[in-house]
Amino acid sequence: MNPYRTLTRHDHDGVAFIVFDHPPINLVDRELVIDLLNLAKALEGDAQTRVVIFRSANPDFFLAHYDLGSQLGKPAAPLAEGQASVLSVLFSRYSRLPQVTIGELRGRARGAGSEFLLALDMRFASRERGVLGQPEVAIGLLPGAGGTVRLTQLLGRGRALEVCLGGADFDADTAERYGWINRAVADAELQAFVEALARRIAGFPASGIAHIKAVVDGLSAADGAALAEESQRFVGDLVAPETVARVQWLMANGGQTDGVMERDLGALLECYPQALDKA
Amino acid sequence: MNPYRTLTRHDHDGVAFIVFDHPPINLVDRELVIDLLNLAKALEGDAQTRVVIFRSANPDFFLAHYDLGSQLGKPAAPLAEGQASVLSVLFSRYSRLPQVTIGELRGRARGAGSEFLLALDMRFASRERGVLGQPEVAIGLLPGAGGTVRLTQLLGRGRALEVCLGGADFDADTAERYGWINRAVADAELQAFVEALARRIAGFPASGIAHIKAVVDGLSAADGAALAEESQRFVGDLVAPETVARVQWLMANGGQTDGVMERDLGALLECYPQALDKA
Amino acid sequence: MNPYRTLTRHDHDGVAFIVFDHPPINLVDRELVIDLLNLAKALEGDAQTRVVIFRSANPDFFLAHYDLGSQLGKPAAPLAEGQASVLSVLFSRYSRLPQVTIGELRGRARGAGSEFLLALDMRFASRERGVLGQPEVAIGLLPGAGGTVRLTQLLGRGRALEVCLGGADFDADTAERYGWINRAVADAELQAFVEALARRIAGFPASGIAHIKAVVDGLSAADGAALAEESQRFVGDLVAPETVARVQWLMANGGQTDGVMERDLGALLECYPQALDKA
Repeated sequence: MNPYRTLTRHDHDGVAFIVFDHPPINLVDRELVIDLLNLAKALEGDAQTRVVIFRSANPDFFLAHYDLGSQLGKPAAPLAEGQASVLSVLFSRYSRLPQVTIGELRGRARGAGSEFLLALDMRFASRERGVLGQPEVAIGLLPGAGGTVRLTQLLGRGRALEVCLGGADFDADTAERYGWINRAVADAELQAFVEALARRIAGFPASGIAHIKAVVDGLSAADGAALAEESQRFVGDLVAPETVARVQWLMANGGQTDGVMERDLGALLECYPQALDKA
Repeated sequence: MNPYRTLTRHDHDGVAFIVFDHPPINLVDRELVIDLLNLAKALEGDAQTRVVIFRSANPDFFLAHYDLGSQLGKPAAPLAEGQASVLSVLFSRYSRLPQVTIGELRGRARGAGSEFLLALDMRFASRERGVLGQPEVAIGLLPGAGGTVRLTQLLGRGRALEVCLGGADFDADTAERYGWINRAVADAELQAFVEALARRIAGFPASGIAHIKAVVDGLSAADGAALAEESQRFVGDLVAPETVARVQWLMANGGQTDGVMERDLGALLECYPQALDKA
Repeated sequence: MNPYRTLTRHDHDGVAFIVFDHPPINLVDRELVIDLLNLAKALEGDAQTRVVIFRSANPDFFLAHYDLGSQLGKPAAPLAEGQASVLSVLFSRYSRLPQVTIGELRGRARGAGSEFLLALDMRFASRERGVLGQPEVAIGLLPGAGGTVRLTQLLGRGRALEVCLGGADFDADTAERYGWINRAVADAELQAFVEALARRIAGFPASGIAHIKAVVDGLSAADGAALAEESQRFVGDLVAPETVARVQWLMANGGQTDGVMERDLGALLECYPQALDKA
């Protein structure tokens, strides 16, 4: 029986295949976060699995973004000083897993969806169907689950500022040029490419894999103090009037369900406060 | 009345449009530096302006480079220990402005012109007409207004060394591949692209913009000690005989005015000490 | 008389041309390491030479990789705590040479061959004939002569992990996109491109070159503690049974000589423990 409600896991020869399947748009909501917490716990104690592939059952959405609607009713609890948010801490656990983690991106990964991918070891995207975005700026926030920090470390100052301040959608080719993903791969070849790489790594001795991950992580792990600062700034503004007004507009105009708004979120966010016609 | 002598400023809906207009080649001379100092002061205290675009009235020159001829008569005053130069400090003020700063590069930006762009938040260049270069090495100097430091942080060791040691001109496509600019954009689309991005950002809440700039800056600001060291090394050699001889050759062969030398500076600098025929 | 057994050196106008010529595959063995040690010593005290170009007499192999077969008979001596390996220390000396060092890559540079290139100031590769790889993971090791550290600093976390964990061969275009090399250049133009750059730099004053190298190095030198940790992890596992078994398989299947295995090493390493037919 599948112990998860929003994803499935299948294992084969040391490779775990995780498939997000949380209709309609793989929203990063409470259920999905609980599943990711349980999956992290399972993987942290799993010495048999060498490689983990993350993909989506929905070709249009990898992970839509964080469930902003849930914040409208009850404000987020303030964070203790120096603490990172639950989501930020969770994603950092994924970045420290003993397994090699690979994101196979088809469809949209925005906000926390992009931040989850950024916490993985590698990211490959469908050239035709991969979409990445950090739209938080449009509702008065910064990417708050590690994205601001990891984008700065990975893309460099200029491109991280463009991604975070512009809040636009990026196709896979641009994301590759910027270093957001390892590579854009033709959609028809993406699954085979990722599986071949995963199988190959799973066949190598465990010792070399562990050494490589340890040395690379020692040099490139996301800065802990910066992650905490990022969380503090994010949570502190979740209940700001301008943020709440923009989230309400988003919810009233098709946000968080499958439709025009979520499919073209990067472009449509700048239409606020104008009402969108439902297409 | 325009309070500036070498540039104009127009504001529209939270976006400031700065146009360099200092014939013949937008040389970074005393007048232009004074204007940049006054503009920095104005922007630092300006809570209304969200985004600043920098462009040039001259399609062939964005900012030519620092006024080397001015150094021939009177040697630069030595810097106090641990101090960065006036120009380096000025450019670092631009990198800390509360506004989002965008460089729209058409024409040549060499030496201090490139270093000014590097201090901005983002840089977009005309694919057909953008040219970048750090030619200081050809006169015995290093890029001394932040360029050596920011290029190393942005392009990585190998490409920063190539740019600074080779002193060549780079077209926009190569500059994009190297990470020197965010993106090369078709010349016909560049202005619209930059303005759309600026208007979009200016419509987002101020809080998210400030958070993003603070976190990214905390992780990626140019290293202060390295900037000071860079300035010291630059100013210390401005009066070296080999530097003076090469600047004199540059001035005698069409330097610092519009013509063959300034248009093809990257290639022609290696002709020293041969006299150039004026074409 | 040539004082080297595995390479030649010719000098012209301040440029030294080093050509690796150690048939059949330019293996990084004891003889070649001794030559590199002597060459480093010569260059460290050489104030006349401004630029050093490294190329190969063999168009199929730049530097094959470290001589693993030599480790089978006699295990490597353990390293003192906190020490980097002989090879790692040697390559770091190349990264600190007073000269500007340029790798001109035609053919394969895997393992220590790639790590040598990574320690140079710049790397240009033949678009058609350049091949880079870090295959150590396939025998249970990490790149141990600076490669894990320098790839992380140069390519960023995601791509460094892909290169080191996947152990695959990379063509020059992909290596350029990843930042492993400065640029891929058409094979027919590579030599002229590199020589023009070298001659150009050699004609510039020494002072600017020294300033640039010093400031860039201060910001981007490979982290010493990380290099030592990398070496310790590499040497500690050289005699692990799984590593020894895989090296023996490699030697029994055409490793370390010219043939199918070395030409297609990146792909064939995943065939272990299956016997390869000699083609």
